[in-house]
Parts: sequence; structure tokens; C-alpha cells
Amino acid sequence: MSLDEHPGTVPAEQEERESQLVERVVASFDATPDPRLKDLMQALTRHLHAFLREVRLTEEEWQRAIEFLTAAGHITDDRRQEFILLSDILGASMQTIAINNEAYQNATEATVFGPFFVEGSPEIQPGGDIAAGASGEPCWVEGTVTDTFGKPVPHALIEVWEANRDGFYDVQYDDGRVAARGHLFSDAGGRYRFWGITPTPYPIPHDGPVGLLLAATGRSPMRASHLHFMVQAKGYRTLVTHIFVRGDEFLDRDSVFGVKDSLVMDFMPQPPGTPTPDGRDLGDRAWSRVRFDIVLPPTAARKHPPPGSGN
Amino acid sequence: MSLDEHPGTVPAEQEERESQLVERVVASFDATPDPRLKDLMQALTRHLHAFLREVRLTEEEWQRAIEFLTAAGHITDDRRQEFILLSDILGASMQTIAINNEAYQNATEATVFGPFFVEGSPEIQPGGDIAAGASGEPCWVEGTVTDTFGKPVPHALIEVWEANRDGFYDVQYDDGRVAARGHLFSDAGGRYRFWGITPTPYPIPHDGPVGLLLAATGRSPMRASHLHFMVQAKGYRTLVTHIFVRGDEFLDRDSVFGVKDSLVMDFMPQPPGTPTPDGRDLGDRAWSRVRFDIVLPPTAARKHPPPGSGN
Repeated sequence: MSLDEHPGTVPAEQEERESQLVERVVASFDATPDPRLKDLMQALTRHLHAFLREVRLTEEEWQRAIEFLTAAGHITDDRRQEFILLSDILGASMQTIAINNEAYQNATEATVFGPFFVEGSPEIQPGGDIAAGASGEPCWVEGTVTDTFGKPVPHALIEVWEANRDGFYDVQYDDGRVAARGHLFSDAGGRYRFWGITPTPYPIPHDGPVGLLLAATGRSPMRASHLHFMVQAKGYRTLVTHIFVRGDEFLDRDSVFGVKDSLVMDFMPQPPGTPTPDGRDLGDRAWSRVRFDIVLPPTAARKHPPPGSGN
Repeated sequence: MSLDEHPGTVPAEQEERESQLVERVVASFDATPDPRLKDLMQALTRHLHAFLREVRLTEEEWQRAIEFLTAAGHITDDRRQEFILLSDILGASMQTIAINNEAYQNATEATVFGPFFVEGSPEIQPGGDIAAGASGEPCWVEGTVTDTFGKPVPHALIEVWEANRDGFYDVQYDDGRVAARGHLFSDAGGRYRFWGITPTPYPIPHDGPVGLLLAATGRSPMRASHLHFMVQAKGYRTLVTHIFVRGDEFLDRDSVFGVKDSLVMDFMPQPPGTPTPDGRDLGDRAWSRVRFDIVLPPTAARKHPPPGSGN
């Protein structure tokens, strides 16, 4: 059979050669002591080779992929994580979240963690301000933490973090500042409240290879406006999520696929002079307020056990 | 349905949610101007998500994958290419070679390029020695370059490179040495000949994340003994290949899946004192000799056009 007659067809002998190679690579992992690692590597091999064979990857494209990964590795440091960005813009982060945080009754939905969480954030007292000088419009955030039956969850650890009005998290600055992040605890009635910043849209870091990929594929680097939450309490599945701003222009094209309808909230604008819930004097500044009631699923609702992990 | 009753089953609603996410990510690439890039990114998305969903990747495993890629990026520099090693040990390099160098009549088969080729190698005269001080037993290499009808290909550019007896290529040393590599040209009759080193087995660099992965999966980092060739001539498909040593203990478990039966050659041992083909005096040293006749396919036999490249 001439290649010219059937340019898109791979001859049977060639197909056989390629699939034999896949089986050789799969078999090379047969002696892996950890059964889960064995399953992961064998599945990775099959899917990776299926991709290569389907697209008939050229050697030049392979070379560019190597260069892309190398550039991603070299721009990654303590404050910049290009591989997480890559995972994010391919939806892989969100898919992993979805797999591990299955819908459970009325529990709050999870979304992407992102690369900007930092351990050891300052503790904020009830009604305190996480801004710590970060630019942006003040935003009063309040709500409850309950279980799926509505029972309050007291002393839940609530981590919150967000970008400033210029679209940057504190860790993206060189000066070691800690701002627009903190942790607090729900009270005996499961209630929490704090001052933050009204979220605004911002681009993910796009001056590296991931940004070049977004540009080459006609995609926007913008994230829909959001405020990050991570909520932990004994006996409950840890919740990693955001709340989004209803009406935001990027809700339907969030660069990391993090938006879920149930997480879009009404951030109600408050004109200058509107009395604040805690009597704080904001002078002639406008502010906003939002309510976010958090429902935690029990630990037992964690996830399906992955195959090979022995149930 | 209780998760406990069917621990390995993903509920239909969850399946639907996950597949909708895949479609959203695929659709995000719809506006890619380059049709080939669009196809590549959409196929990559589908295969990546199929992998994540099949193995039910945990968040901890995702984190470890990010750390693995980060470590690979950080160990990669001008002389060390961990991403190529990763591609090699997953068989992805070999599969890409296979896809792009289909079997063509009696043409010599291709194999992996590896990370140790260097542009600008020294030119070697016919019968010259590429060793340039590299340790190892002398090896006389000779053969012809012809087309698939047996017609000699004169003035073909033949690049050759190999590791020394200690298992290192020159570029793995810090001192800028150039040894055990060179280029030469076939003569008017398509013949070539040079002195090299009898190939010996060596491990791929395994002091990085790829080495840890090999160890964790019970795999050897060893490569079967080999000598690299790259042969280029106008009107012919460029050949990147190795020759392997018949009887080598690693032929059936080469860490990068590069071995093909047709590339295993008889390296014939020559006891000390055996007269050399060119009269070179090797004193009391043993040496070896091998014949490798190279058959180049025409450029037209290059490959199937990848989908989306416009035939």
C-alpha cells in the first residue's frame, strides 16, 4: 500500500510495532513493589502513548514539548509554580478536585486550590480585617459553618486569602509582606465574620511558558474574581473552595475552570456612608458585603477509594 | 446508592460532572488559530483527563506529580536533561521515533536520539580515531552507506558518539573535553571506517527524580551497550540510530526501550597482537571490530503527515 494513496492511514505492521512498544513499557513496571504506583505508571504509559499515536506527534513537536517543560521548570521557584499553572489551565487541577470531592448532599462544592496559599497565615479575631494594607474596596464577609443537617460546626479553622486590587497576592511581591490572608475560627454557633477586599479579576502569571501557550491558543489568562477559602474541622472533609462575584465578566471563561454556579455569590455594593455591621468607620469609602454559608460533608464522604489502594 | 456498597463505582451524576469539565476544557481551545496546535491541545486534554479519571488520582498524588516535575525542572541544565530522560524511560521518545520513522523496505531502523548529541563535533578522516583519549577498548567500525537498492551514497555525513568505559559521555564531565564523538563522510563508494571504543553498558543519569522513579518501580537504569549514529545525505531521510552489542546482558531490558533486533551487531573480539585493518599498532591491547552497513530510505518515505497538518 502506498503512503500517498492513504496519507492518514497507519499500516497494520506499523500499528503492531507501536502497540508492541506500549506493551513493553507497561511490562517494565510489572515488578513495582507498590501496587498503586504500578497502576499509576501503567495507566500513565497507556494514556501517554495513546496520545502520541493519535496525534502522530512529530519529532519537532516532541522537542518543543521538552523545551516547554524545561522552561516551566526553570521559571518555577519558591514563589512561582508554573507546573501548577499548567495543570490549572489544562483543567487537570479542577478534575482532580472533582474526583476527590464528589458532590455530597447539600455540602459546599470544592474548587481549585491555586498556587498562592501560604502556611502560617496570621490569626484574625472575629470581625477583624485580613487586608493588612492590601489595596481594594473593603468587603464584609459573614456566614456559618454547619454540617449537612444544619448543625453548627464550632471552632472550624477557616483560612482565607485573596489578591489585592492590582491582581497580586502578597507572595508575588519581593518584600515579604503578609496581606489579604489570614485564618479565623467559627464561634460556638458556627458563625464567622471578617473584613476582606471585594474580589476583582486578575490574570494568572502569564509571562512564562504557560502564558505563551494561552496566547498561542487564543485563551485569556484572566481568572473570574474570587475569594479563597479552606475550611477544616475534625470529623469533616476539608473544604478547599472560592466564592465568586455574581455578574463578573469572566465567570464563563475562567482560565482555570474553577467556577461552579453554586459558588457564585451576591457581593452587595454599599455606597459611601452606609453603616457597617460592626460600626467600623470607613469614611467616604464604598464597601460591599457578602454572605457565604459553608456546609461541610462528613469525613466518611471523602471519596471513592482509588483502584489498587486496597479499598 | 451508598458509596460503601460499590466502592469502585463512580455515580452517574459524578461521571457527568467530570465529562462536562473535559468538554469545557476542550472547548476552551476552539479559537486556537493554528489548527495543528488546536488538535494537539484538545487531544492532550482528552487523554490527560482520561488518565486522571481512570486512576481516580488523589490530591496527594497530584501534589507529588507537581513536585516530581519541579525537581525534574530544577536538575535540568545545559548538560543534564531530565525531561528527555523521563520521556525516554516512559518509552515516549522511542514511540515518537517509531511514529516518525516507519519501517521502509530494507532501510536501517531508527532508535532514540538521547540527550548527549552535541553540534559541532570534530571531523575525523577515514580510518581516524574518535576516542581522543576516552577510556575503552579500541573498536574498528566499518561499513557502507547505500540506498534501499544498494546504490552507494557518497559523501553522507555520519555523526558518531558514545560513552567511555566508565559510562560517561564527554559532556558529562566538567572540563569541556571533547572525546568519543566525531563526524566523517562516506567516500565515493559509500564506504566509511573509523576507530571508536567497544561499547559497554552504563546507567542513564539516575541521581535525580527519574532515577528515584526507576528505583521505586523496580527498574534498572542500565542501557544496553551501544554506539550512536546519525546519518544525513541529500535526498534521504535522516537516520538516527544506535548499534548494539550481541550478547549484551541488557538487550532485553534497556531502560529507554531503544533495542531493535536488526540493530544488534556482532562486535568481534580481537586478541592482543591481531593485525589491525589499517596497520595501527595497538601493542598488547585487545580490540574489536564490527561491520554496520547503513541503508537510507528516500526523503519521500519520511512519515505519515500528522492529522491537522494539511496532508
